[in-house]
Amino acid sequence: MYKLVLIRHGESTWNLENRFTGWTDVDLTPTGVSQAMSAGKLLKAEGYEFDLAFTSVLKRAIHTLWYALDEMDSTWLPVVKDWRLNERHYGALQGLNKADMAKQYGDEQVLVWRRSYDTPPPALEATDPRSERGDRRYANVAAENVPLTECLKDTVARVLPFWNEAMAPAIRSGKRVVVAAHGNSIRALVKYLDNISESDIVGLNIPNGIPLVYELDADLKPIRHYYLGDAEAAAKAAAAVASQGKA
Amino acid sequence: MYKLVLIRHGESTWNLENRFTGWTDVDLTPTGVSQAMSAGKLLKAEGYEFDLAFTSVLKRAIHTLWYALDEMDSTWLPVVKDWRLNERHYGALQGLNKADMAKQYGDEQVLVWRRSYDTPPPALEATDPRSERGDRRYANVAAENVPLTECLKDTVARVLPFWNEAMAPAIRSGKRVVVAAHGNSIRALVKYLDNISESDIVGLNIPNGIPLVYELDADLKPIRHYYLGDAEAAAKAAAAVASQGKA
Repeated sequence: MYKLVLIRHGESTWNLENRFTGWTDVDLTPTGVSQAMSAGKLLKAEGYEFDLAFTSVLKRAIHTLWYALDEMDSTWLPVVKDWRLNERHYGALQGLNKADMAKQYGDEQVLVWRRSYDTPPPALEATDPRSERGDRRYANVAAENVPLTECLKDTVARVLPFWNEAMAPAIRSGKRVVVAAHGNSIRALVKYLDNISESDIVGLNIPNGIPLVYELDADLKPIRHYYLGDAEAAAKAAAAVASQGKA
Repeated sequence: MYKLVLIRHGESTWNLENRFTGWTDVDLTPTGVSQAMSAGKLLKAEGYEFDLAFTSVLKRAIHTLWYALDEMDSTWLPVVKDWRLNERHYGALQGLNKADMAKQYGDEQVLVWRRSYDTPPPALEATDPRSERGDRRYANVAAENVPLTECLKDTVARVLPFWNEAMAPAIRSGKRVVVAAHGNSIRALVKYLDNISESDIVGLNIPNGIPLVYELDADLKPIRHYYLGDAEAAAKAAAAVASQGKA
């Protein structure tokens, strides 16, 4: 049996300001730092040890991993950073306030943008200063693969190849893997692992900074999954995520 | 022409306590953190950009790199951590106070242990609780390659294969490389690059947290090298390193 641990990054400055973030590279808040450290403390207390870590190329996830590894005295762990674990790209909504958008377009429209499986938000123009196409961290990614917007379906379509190429082989080789990533890149993985339908994944929310453990069989099929620590706190944190897009 | 940037970690707790450190995994002091941040600020101010970073598996070097990358807004940079960039192993002296040892054995003996090219300090017993042979971060290293003591010659003997296998090919491929490492792993590289004799390398000291830039030709032969920032400050910091082992 294998164990895979997924951690959504701690609270970011734009989580706090209730803004659509996507690929915008905002940092953790002090609360986010503390959540990341708590995740590491919890993993250490429960005796978890890892051989390999995966994260995105966005600092809120990378810093979450760093704080957690420091708490586990595993600063030395090899870390693979890949853009395919990035948050879902939020298109032209990146930087805008979720509640403002709900006032302007209605709760339902915002819910569609936030949670529809296959309807992306309006796209950024490639020339928009917010577009990541000029960012040198994506220089090795074909321009057409650097999104201008994404729905969750698009996120799944780039997370899964990374799972198949990098993560699954590492787990199969016996490496104990921890992943620090984002609400939607983790939802993409969870949808795949648990074979969740397109309609059901819409209602699934991942709380910040609480380690989510998957126990996997030899074929990497989930046996069970659970949040570490206080189950009630995890449920409450997930509910808070769900309510962010309300006017 | 290629540029290679070498950074010795910022001041560590055992630098401050004047203790022999070697492979002991002590962290940065607040001064060391500030040195690491200064290194990053300096590199940013001078317009340096990197594509790949190398560091050891010891947290004083890894944290130095992390702070520097954060200052350069390059948190996302790929980082390769390898034990072959570790500090020289200090054998049975690890943890002991340099001045105490100088009082007990004399300045000259300590200078030999600190600076002889081919005389290692007394070895740790493999069963000594200070030995790293049971540390899982070295689980993939053949036990006989996890040293119980090292002279600089031994350090050179493990740094160079890493240079040849990993660092030189990356530089030749056009990747701009930054290295956060240790006094003696950097001296090993410098000795090789500048073809410094065994007797001359003994008098060369690397200051903490000041970026050392090597300009290399197409064959990776040095054209010139220099410290970034205040040259006088760098010389003073190097002199302070030289005087650490006095009673």
